Amino acid sequence: MATLNDIGVAAAINILTAFAFFLAFAVLRIQPVNDRVYFPKWYLKGLRSSPLRSGASVSKFVNLDFRSYVRFLTWMPAALQMPEPELIDHAGLDSAVYLRIYLIGLKIFVPITLLAFSIMVPVNWTNKTLEHSNLTYSDVDKLSISNIPSASHRFWTHLVMAYAFTFWTCYVLKREFEIVAALRLHFLASEQRHPDQFTVLVRNVPPDPDESISELLEHFFLVNHPDHYLSHQVVYNANRLSELVNEKNKTQNWLDYYQNKYSRHPDHKPSIKTGFLGLCGSRVDAIDFYTSKIERLSRDISQEREKIMGNARSIMPAAFVSFQTRWGAAVCAQTQLSRNPTTWLTEWAPEPRDVCWENLAIPYVSLTIRRLIIAVAFFFLTFFFMIPIVFVQSLANIEAIEKALPFLKPIIEVKFIKSLIQGFLPGIALKIFLIFLPTILMLMSKFEGFISQSALERRSATRYYFFQFINVFLGSIITGTAFQQLNNFIHQSANDIPKTIGASIPMKATFFITYIMVDGWAGVAAEILRLKPLVIYHLKNFFLVKTEKDREEAMDPGTLGFNTGEPQIQLYFLLGLVYAVVTPILLPFIIIFFSLAYVVYRHQIINVYNQEYESAAAFWPDVHARIVTALIISQLLLMGLLSTKEAAQSTPLLIMLPILTIWFHRFCKERYEPAFISYPLQEAMMKDTLERTREPNLNLKGFLQNAYIHPVFKQADDNDNESANEESDQEPALIPTKRGSRTSIPMPSKHGGSTSNSLSSNQGNS
Amino acid sequence: MATLNDIGVAAAINILTAFAFFLAFAVLRIQPVNDRVYFPKWYLKGLRSSPLRSGASVSKFVNLDFRSYVRFLTWMPAALQMPEPELIDHAGLDSAVYLRIYLIGLKIFVPITLLAFSIMVPVNWTNKTLEHSNLTYSDVDKLSISNIPSASHRFWTHLVMAYAFTFWTCYVLKREFEIVAALRLHFLASEQRHPDQFTVLVRNVPPDPDESISELLEHFFLVNHPDHYLSHQVVYNANRLSELVNEKNKTQNWLDYYQNKYSRHPDHKPSIKTGFLGLCGSRVDAIDFYTSKIERLSRDISQEREKIMGNARSIMPAAFVSFQTRWGAAVCAQTQLSRNPTTWLTEWAPEPRDVCWENLAIPYVSLTIRRLIIAVAFFFLTFFFMIPIVFVQSLANIEAIEKALPFLKPIIEVKFIKSLIQGFLPGIALKIFLIFLPTILMLMSKFEGFISQSALERRSATRYYFFQFINVFLGSIITGTAFQQLNNFIHQSANDIPKTIGASIPMKATFFITYIMVDGWAGVAAEILRLKPLVIYHLKNFFLVKTEKDREEAMDPGTLGFNTGEPQIQLYFLLGLVYAVVTPILLPFIIIFFSLAYVVYRHQIINVYNQEYESAAAFWPDVHARIVTALIISQLLLMGLLSTKEAAQSTPLLIMLPILTIWFHRFCKERYEPAFISYPLQEAMMKDTLERTREPNLNLKGFLQNAYIHPVFKQADDNDNESANEESDQEPALIPTKRGSRTSIPMPSKHGGSTSNSLSSNQGNS
Repeated sequence: MATLNDIGVAAAINILTAFAFFLAFAVLRIQPVNDRVYFPKWYLKGLRSSPLRSGASVSKFVNLDFRSYVRFLTWMPAALQMPEPELIDHAGLDSAVYLRIYLIGLKIFVPITLLAFSIMVPVNWTNKTLEHSNLTYSDVDKLSISNIPSASHRFWTHLVMAYAFTFWTCYVLKREFEIVAALRLHFLASEQRHPDQFTVLVRNVPPDPDESISELLEHFFLVNHPDHYLSHQVVYNANRLSELVNEKNKTQNWLDYYQNKYSRHPDHKPSIKTGFLGLCGSRVDAIDFYTSKIERLSRDISQEREKIMGNARSIMPAAFVSFQTRWGAAVCAQTQLSRNPTTWLTEWAPEPRDVCWENLAIPYVSLTIRRLIIAVAFFFLTFFFMIPIVFVQSLANIEAIEKALPFLKPIIEVKFIKSLIQGFLPGIALKIFLIFLPTILMLMSKFEGFISQSALERRSATRYYFFQFINVFLGSIITGTAFQQLNNFIHQSANDIPKTIGASIPMKATFFITYIMVDGWAGVAAEILRLKPLVIYHLKNFFLVKTEKDREEAMDPGTLGFNTGEPQIQLYFLLGLVYAVVTPILLPFIIIFFSLAYVVYRHQIINVYNQEYESAAAFWPDVHARIVTALIISQLLLMGLLSTKEAAQSTPLLIMLPILTIWFHRFCKERYEPAFISYPLQEAMMKDTLERTREPNLNLKGFLQNAYIHPVFKQADDNDNESANEESDQEPALIPTKRGSRTSIPMPSKHGGSTSNSLSSNQGNS
Repeated sequence: MATLNDIGVAAAINILTAFAFFLAFAVLRIQPVNDRVYFPKWYLKGLRSSPLRSGASVSKFVNLDFRSYVRFLTWMPAALQMPEPELIDHAGLDSAVYLRIYLIGLKIFVPITLLAFSIMVPVNWTNKTLEHSNLTYSDVDKLSISNIPSASHRFWTHLVMAYAFTFWTCYVLKREFEIVAALRLHFLASEQRHPDQFTVLVRNVPPDPDESISELLEHFFLVNHPDHYLSHQVVYNANRLSELVNEKNKTQNWLDYYQNKYSRHPDHKPSIKTGFLGLCGSRVDAIDFYTSKIERLSRDISQEREKIMGNARSIMPAAFVSFQTRWGAAVCAQTQLSRNPTTWLTEWAPEPRDVCWENLAIPYVSLTIRRLIIAVAFFFLTFFFMIPIVFVQSLANIEAIEKALPFLKPIIEVKFIKSLIQGFLPGIALKIFLIFLPTILMLMSKFEGFISQSALERRSATRYYFFQFINVFLGSIITGTAFQQLNNFIHQSANDIPKTIGASIPMKATFFITYIMVDGWAGVAAEILRLKPLVIYHLKNFFLVKTEKDREEAMDPGTLGFNTGEPQIQLYFLLGLVYAVVTPILLPFIIIFFSLAYVVYRHQIINVYNQEYESAAAFWPDVHARIVTALIISQLLLMGLLSTKEAAQSTPLLIMLPILTIWFHRFCKERYEPAFISYPLQEAMMKDTLERTREPNLNLKGFLQNAYIHPVFKQADDNDNESANEESDQEPALIPTKRGSRTSIPMPSKHGGSTSNSLSSNQGNS
């Protein structure tokens, strides 16, 4: 059992770590040489130019203005200054709404903490159950529900508090849902003209023996949407072509590398071996080798392109169908077309840069089978992943280590080391396991056949949350207990587990406190340092960069990473809600996490991240649903806990809580969720009418012509006919960005000027 | 414990009862005087005329052809003769598909029974666990899973069987879903022109200070559906008017009664007292009294009608909006109109006769609150209803009765009476309780605000099923055990209950066998006798009927009663699936139920029932979902049972079953359910085009003008301007039937001739 003292040591370590990260960040970010690592967003917006360009002194690379080192936390207030509407303009609605999740955390937990500390902590503390029992206990447990004797009337306090917390959480959630829905609708209404507003993705076009897919599409829509159909763009199976293009890019990188090397040492012509990994084979001139390889690849690419365009079989049974009006597209996206609900599937086309091209051609039956396969795979991943965690956590148990390796006893018994092991190890072990997970989950979602990057990330987030709930939350609670009473546990039936969880919760509070500190505090502080992008940028900068454009490409601004970030926040919601009634001492740690993360991510969103897509906060219903889930789990576990405490008379009252919460969820779902799924016809008609009045001669067909061409064709088109893109160059926000590469440079937002002013303090320092 | 002998006695009693019912039916149905009770459908279709009309001998009332008494079961093959397409023409798709539920029962359970009897019964029987134990047991238990020793390897048989049964059930379900979806689409495609194909119900029209609701509607749809909007029909709040009309009809009945009485005894002028229930007050002449009352009511009615038409406040914020094409209506019904998802709610208009007029005006917020109230009320109804059942079932326990009332012992110990009590009482007690339930549930659904009779019945069916699951199924299993071990049970935690259920299931097999016999066999046989309609018809016929039209109104053909019938069938599916692995001896009883019910209800649908609406089998997804639910419940309970049998190594394999079943359900839902919810645009366009070619000069506006007028206005209109209905008289299937009264006479179907031929054997007997 960790004592308050242990927690104090862990807290001190973690605070120091976080502080060290912040300090390192403060020093690194004001070095001009790192400017592109810590402020890439401004470069991408074209509002900041490289400090390396002018002058040639040391100050180009190192900041010599020592006064700027003193004010090393100035970024914090600066990050908070930008008002929300400006933030939406600057970074998009997705990012702005993402920050609101942290704010919700504060809104929910600050009042709950105040209430819990003023009422429940005294009620728990003024008992002597633990002192009179034979159990070992710590001061933390004295503050928790464990200190209340069985069948005590004091449990009524916890019951009333559970109601109060539930109502407060629901109130905050409802208000936020309302605000976010309004933000989204306002954002969509004030948006510029986008191709995806007029376009619907049609999948599973049934094969027709007499007509090509393109003809079939045209006929079908001319018949069934005669007044609104405009044009369509078939989808080519260009997966092989993408591979070739990727290989060409990679080869080009190597060529650049050797050319750089040669220009630095003109006396030594670089050469490589052609065999496996450059370790064997004959030695050839590197530059010649790669130049000829690029030539060969270019030839292959143009051949492959012709092959695709000429062959009817490379057209996939899917297409982007464009309509004359937003109204027509809205109608087509929301209705069922064919009597067979598995053909002619329509849905809103994602943004061009959000499309997941590889998945467009998967037929319906394959989709359902893929879903089952992934469901089973995910089941095994979730439940068999526990084995290594169980193993590591068994090490974190001091007594177990001492028993297994008695010769270590003198070292472990040193108070400081003991605290270190107990405070750190379990958290870090978990963290390392979890680092590899998001990639696997993203691959699983991709295999499942989602057609847009944003949907992929949302699904991965759901899976990641479930995984964390089972393995981090339940796993930590049950297996911790499991090693203390292993023999009993294996032979227990599945029915007793809920009881066990409820009873184990108070005992695990200290573990989760250290977890919050390691994962939440230090983890968030590490995020701002961007160690990995920093290293990679400097490597690239040294080996590959020749022109300013290369340097642009070497920047890796990264994204928010909804698929990993959001589920982690949700874990804190879960912990907070579960422990609010049981061990309120955990709450302040969560509040610190939320405030710290809010400031850090606000800073990153303003200065660093460059979102790859804009879904207009389409993820909010998921966020809402998961917080509600956490609420219901907390209520059920409280019920389990109280039933072991012989406070059975409170059970009927507790049963009402999940029922009311589920009703609340359904109410919110019906009231607000449609705003996130469908596009109201009234809105569409309004925008159409407005546009028709403003631009009566708009050439919509020209505008939509190339919007949904596979990016590999696009790249070629860019070289071939620059003139075709002239129109879109005038409105560059409409150029479909090339997904995959990060070369796209979004335009400055309308209020870009004021934005850069508000951050002038930042830039002044550099 | 009931022995095989007890079950034999109960079976004999129930078979005799059923046989008696059939015999009574055979005699009663061939009496000409009962012709309108047993063949009302044919009268309503105009294919049969009253045998009372011609001649005046006794043979008008009593069948004197004694040969016809001999062939008293001829109706059975006759009922089976009509082929399904003809049945759909004759009785509608709802009825035809309803019969398929019984067929599914047979398709699922006949192969399962064969398999179970050839494999599982021998496996169970060849053990001696029960003989060596100290438990009391019966022969039924020897055939069940109870006879297998704990931790035996024989449980693998049950595991494999559980898989086999699941796969077979899923296969049958999938095939049926496919067939029913095809039937529905074909039915909709071949249907005649109906007003509801062009009409959408719009609810929650937001109030506008400047415009009346009618103007607002017109402007809104002219703006947002400019090319398709045709007209609209506002909804008046005519609830008060309906009451007045109802009262007038009732008064008219009394007047008829006294006029009949007077005409039979012209010497005695009937008089009544005007006070409470005719018991006090001054005595007046009855005919004069009711005549003046009718006059007064007629005056009130016309006043009220004028008041409604003249007052803007009696227009409710809802309307039936009609479109020029089915395509336009399909688009409007399936899309969201306004950015606020709680206003301008659109959905397909129900058939005019299916509309639930009282509920059209309920605002959105009120709807959600009503839903919560009903959810809570239903919760209490479900869980507190158990108390009386528990009480009655405690009586059904012979030992308990003997203990409580020892002086009854000699009577009870008579073998026959003992069997009677054990075989009959529990089933009957439950049945009586359940008779009053459907009405309550229908009222609850009505309060909840559903807008069509069909939706109301579907919702009630869901509730009824849930109620039966908790109270009949779980209630019988748990409380039966509860009275044997009351003290333990109260202090048990909620977690142990699933285990208890699993373990109790085999012990309750005999109870459910008797329940099936009483409720299923005898109940179905009683249905065909139609005792209540028979008595009421003859009462009405004697007291009220003056003209042939009155006699028509005195018929009460009744309907299938989806809200009560379907959940009862579902209970048999549940029992069958749960006991298939545990106590296969129960299966033959269920098969007999399904075959008997199929024949009886097929006969009733052909000859008796007159559906009040046609939803084109919209209920099928519910039926499918409930059978899948039963399947999952059976799998979970088997898991519970096996865990108490120490067959824990089978648990992982059993867990896969519900997962696969849920996946199967989701697959079916996505694949087939859209056919039951949305109307594909392709189909709509096809019908539109066809119609435009066939009838280029169709006056659609005239056709739709009066389709959605509240029935009370309609009645008046019918009297006022008969000419207006001339057009619809040519296609009488399109006349909106008056809901509530049963005066409507549907037209003969196209194949009416052949239909009546195929049943000529029936008619020949009468």
